[in-house]
Amino acid sequence: MKFDILTLFPEMIESHLNYSILNRAENAGIIDVNTINPRDFTLDKHKKVDNPPFGGGAGMVLMPQPYVDAYESIEKLENSITVMLSPQGEPLNEKLVLDLAKYSQIIMLCGHYEGFDERIREIIKPREISLGDFVLTGGELPALCVIDAVSRKLEGTLGKTESAKDDSFADGLLEYPQYTKPREYRGLKVPEVLLNGNHKEINEFRQSERIKRTKLRRPDLL
Amino acid sequence: MKFDILTLFPEMIESHLNYSILNRAENAGIIDVNTINPRDFTLDKHKKVDNPPFGGGAGMVLMPQPYVDAYESIEKLENSITVMLSPQGEPLNEKLVLDLAKYSQIIMLCGHYEGFDERIREIIKPREISLGDFVLTGGELPALCVIDAVSRKLEGTLGKTESAKDDSFADGLLEYPQYTKPREYRGLKVPEVLLNGNHKEINEFRQSERIKRTKLRRPDLL
Repeated sequence: MKFDILTLFPEMIESHLNYSILNRAENAGIIDVNTINPRDFTLDKHKKVDNPPFGGGAGMVLMPQPYVDAYESIEKLENSITVMLSPQGEPLNEKLVLDLAKYSQIIMLCGHYEGFDERIREIIKPREISLGDFVLTGGELPALCVIDAVSRKLEGTLGKTESAKDDSFADGLLEYPQYTKPREYRGLKVPEVLLNGNHKEINEFRQSERIKRTKLRRPDLL
Repeated sequence: MKFDILTLFPEMIESHLNYSILNRAENAGIIDVNTINPRDFTLDKHKKVDNPPFGGGAGMVLMPQPYVDAYESIEKLENSITVMLSPQGEPLNEKLVLDLAKYSQIIMLCGHYEGFDERIREIIKPREISLGDFVLTGGELPALCVIDAVSRKLEGTLGKTESAKDDSFADGLLEYPQYTKPREYRGLKVPEVLLNGNHKEINEFRQSERIKRTKLRRPDLL
């Protein structure tokens, strides 16, 4: 999977890739993450990428030319999708993650400041994705979340001993409670059923805990 | 605002703080971000923080002792809240961000692998917060999103020319389209109303665009 990230802060993306499974997935050749800085596509000597909004208002708006030119410089693979990270997009969820994981290239546009000149949307026509109903300073953290969530779905990213199949939302439910050593900690014991080796009972216990927890915390998922 | 982050990957947090407004907010003394590594609180010589789950299943579960001891080592300020980042929590939204911004200390527990031993929840009793209905490898990116979103609400973080007041969700609506220079780009013109200097008309245009966009993209918000 090729990720091409348009960002004014490429170090934010690159520094994060040194850690954990993303580092492993990149070293194993499962993912390939590139950054493209629209600032390198400015035409004036001050390398200006933003300007105040027409009509007034606080903040700076990202100008169309550097973003559109940077976008057009990217080689598009056959099975490619372009995503804009924006609080105005459709909220990211597990279904959308699985959908994105089917592409061979995900191009992501990260905004910053007061956001994109509307004509960037009109020309590039990206699929707009939001991390949720809250506002961040830029699209870099959301882009990293997309890379992380999508990479987990690609064959070979998770090790043999890891698994995404029992994750929350894997079948629309929250995960069951997990326990590990020791059997008793500060007076709190691991539920007996998990220690008896009866896999049918263990599965029943876990499934009933998943339903109970989802009902209690996220009835909207049921 | 003091942020204390319990994480097995402190560099993921620290490296991100070198950039953008978080760097500025930290330098200005508005935020103070510390990391605590539960691995430093292990009692065995291999510094083991995880073990396979009781009852079987893939992955490794975070053991209670290193997390609880690391948590208890943190000095709690008077107006402090403890947050666990987990897909099982309440989804983060702008209202929750504003709520968090009222505290003077946010302690965050980042999971990794297959998640926390349930007794960590039972002992620490954190407020569980989820970034959304998708699964990430760890709580570090969500913790960074919380730091970013909350810091934007603190006085002094955004510069004089920036503003959070017109952001998406600021009053339950998506943001209006923004335009900046040039007046025409690839045949696409800035709407005339934004150029005429009539602030009443500009405000009416923007408000009607916000409602139109919210209706189209996120009718659930209305």
